[in-house]
Amino acid sequence: MKRFRVRARSFQYSVVTGRGAWRALRAFGGAGYSSIFVMTEKALWQRWSKLFRRESGLRKARILFVPAGENSKSLRMAGQVAGELLECGADRRSLLIALGGGVVGDLGGFVASTYMRGIDLVQAPTTVVAQVDSAIGGKTGVNLGAMKNLIGTFHPPRIVVAEPIVLTSLEPRAFRSGLYEMVKHGMLAGSPLFDELEAKLGTLRPDDMTVLEPLLASAAKVKVDVVSRDEREARLRMALNLGHTFGHAIEEATGYRRFLHGEAIGWGLLVIIRLGERLKLLGQRDAERMARLVTKVGRLPPLRDLDPRKVLPLLSRDKKAIGGRIQWVIPERIGRVRIVTGIAPREVAAAFREVQKTPWPLGEAHA
Amino acid sequence: MKRFRVRARSFQYSVVTGRGAWRALRAFGGAGYSSIFVMTEKALWQRWSKLFRRESGLRKARILFVPAGENSKSLRMAGQVAGELLECGADRRSLLIALGGGVVGDLGGFVASTYMRGIDLVQAPTTVVAQVDSAIGGKTGVNLGAMKNLIGTFHPPRIVVAEPIVLTSLEPRAFRSGLYEMVKHGMLAGSPLFDELEAKLGTLRPDDMTVLEPLLASAAKVKVDVVSRDEREARLRMALNLGHTFGHAIEEATGYRRFLHGEAIGWGLLVIIRLGERLKLLGQRDAERMARLVTKVGRLPPLRDLDPRKVLPLLSRDKKAIGGRIQWVIPERIGRVRIVTGIAPREVAAAFREVQKTPWPLGEAHA
Repeated sequence: MKRFRVRARSFQYSVVTGRGAWRALRAFGGAGYSSIFVMTEKALWQRWSKLFRRESGLRKARILFVPAGENSKSLRMAGQVAGELLECGADRRSLLIALGGGVVGDLGGFVASTYMRGIDLVQAPTTVVAQVDSAIGGKTGVNLGAMKNLIGTFHPPRIVVAEPIVLTSLEPRAFRSGLYEMVKHGMLAGSPLFDELEAKLGTLRPDDMTVLEPLLASAAKVKVDVVSRDEREARLRMALNLGHTFGHAIEEATGYRRFLHGEAIGWGLLVIIRLGERLKLLGQRDAERMARLVTKVGRLPPLRDLDPRKVLPLLSRDKKAIGGRIQWVIPERIGRVRIVTGIAPREVAAAFREVQKTPWPLGEAHA
Repeated sequence: MKRFRVRARSFQYSVVTGRGAWRALRAFGGAGYSSIFVMTEKALWQRWSKLFRRESGLRKARILFVPAGENSKSLRMAGQVAGELLECGADRRSLLIALGGGVVGDLGGFVASTYMRGIDLVQAPTTVVAQVDSAIGGKTGVNLGAMKNLIGTFHPPRIVVAEPIVLTSLEPRAFRSGLYEMVKHGMLAGSPLFDELEAKLGTLRPDDMTVLEPLLASAAKVKVDVVSRDEREARLRMALNLGHTFGHAIEEATGYRRFLHGEAIGWGLLVIIRLGERLKLLGQRDAERMARLVTKVGRLPPLRDLDPRKVLPLLSRDKKAIGGRIQWVIPERIGRVRIVTGIAPREVAAAFREVQKTPWPLGEAHA
């Protein structure tokens, strides 16, 4: 079990990661909260409630269920959860624990940050992406129509407790999907995380605790360091958007049905690596190592049939665009990225088409 | 024209009040915003747009209309405005100006604080309450069902510009309603504001600019001082809740139809003054002066027929309640209040009934 510290200008909190992390919640039982709520999904709670209750010691916490899936990230659902909190007597000294993946973390964080103008929040992430990325950093959000996270807040949690045992109950595809975000962290951080991922990612299984735990911890540490140095969405934090400008566009173009979020980021990384090469910002050797690491995670759902004329116009709607200019995060080498604006649309289109046409390294025919 | 400065730990901003206040917005035109939006109500804009455009210099600002009335303070409307912002190309460097009363300020503030996780906000209040109270301090909020401001944020504006000329187009009843909040400020601050209100409130009209301007400025200053010393809702800021615990309950009990907000606060002040006397926390002389000042504003809609059994249970649902305990703000003398918990419900009920039974000083029969 490891404990990292997010140190920003206006607040600090711990990120506890590894087997037994929920035990760090014992301190919250006697911390003077008027009531404690756990917001989660039914299937997850059925599988893990016993362990959670026992390890956290929070036996009296009330449970609020939200339906699984991206559709729960809406203003409507935020209002519904707030209404349930009110009915259960939640007040300004109540605590909300978001136990779940990205949807629960983003929605729970948004509710906690806006219920009576803000109550305390604990993030207890239960997916790979959430444990190494989305639960750390204080971002919350709900979608508006097709725009993901259009509405949200910054609301730092009191603590993040990332217990890896829950990953064993993920669908294999969902587990793998999260590994693409770990690859992103490896590309940002470089050695030793990148090298370790190269060595171990190909055969990684969720019950390989001895291998998985340190990788999760190292990947979480990347996020902790970035967030500590740059709480709001300034240039440094923008680096975390690596692969996301494209990833979001292909998610949207396919109605959020074809790709899991991490899978879309996987493709986004491949496109941005190719774009970096085309622009001569990134050397061939590093580009190949990075692309190989992405493909090592597993086969991605197909990209080939997507119409560039449908995908490319969606890019400029990226939330990180400023005055209509896309802020591209381009890898320069393993462990370093650069923010670039003003890239010619034809370069972007060409990189996209090249990735579409390249035969998948694992070979679709052999999968 | 006066300029005060809100100085909190993590931010500062100016409150400009008086004839010509909108001119302080000229600096925003060249401040590098990618786009500027004015959120307002149609009737208000029709009456004042020319002056606003001319004095602010913001001739290119896009206008977003929201329907007048409390119903606009909803998550649904927040989502709708966010959707319009997106359609008009608003990004993270856009500016939103909330031009209106409490509804526009609260909703606009909420939208600005959550659109893409927060964009810059200007408060341009156009009612008495908003100019001396709600637009200052960074509180935003929307209602959930009957619970006012259940969902909200703290989002300090870049500047507050309070132009009193707009008060001349208020309905007389709406104008008077805001004066009750000024009385509240007078009760909190004591001399010289309280004395000035005693001298001038009875005959005050919205076009009495020479009398009104300094009173508005002094009342706004009360809020600026409290907010500067205590940004979040801690004990000091709680003083601003004077009269509101009861006020909110009778608003809710009458479905927000009988009383304007300020009128409900007027009754709330009368009840709390009586309660202070009953508890022997407040002397009779100051109690009488305070009650007389409240009634000087004008006649309030009747309270007599409200059933205490309906009103009193609503008190404990106050957002400021902690662990179910109401935090009562009780005047001790003119210029000083005390936060008291654990007041016996029978005392509260008795104070309410006494106020219900007391003949209105202006005499309903002679009104």
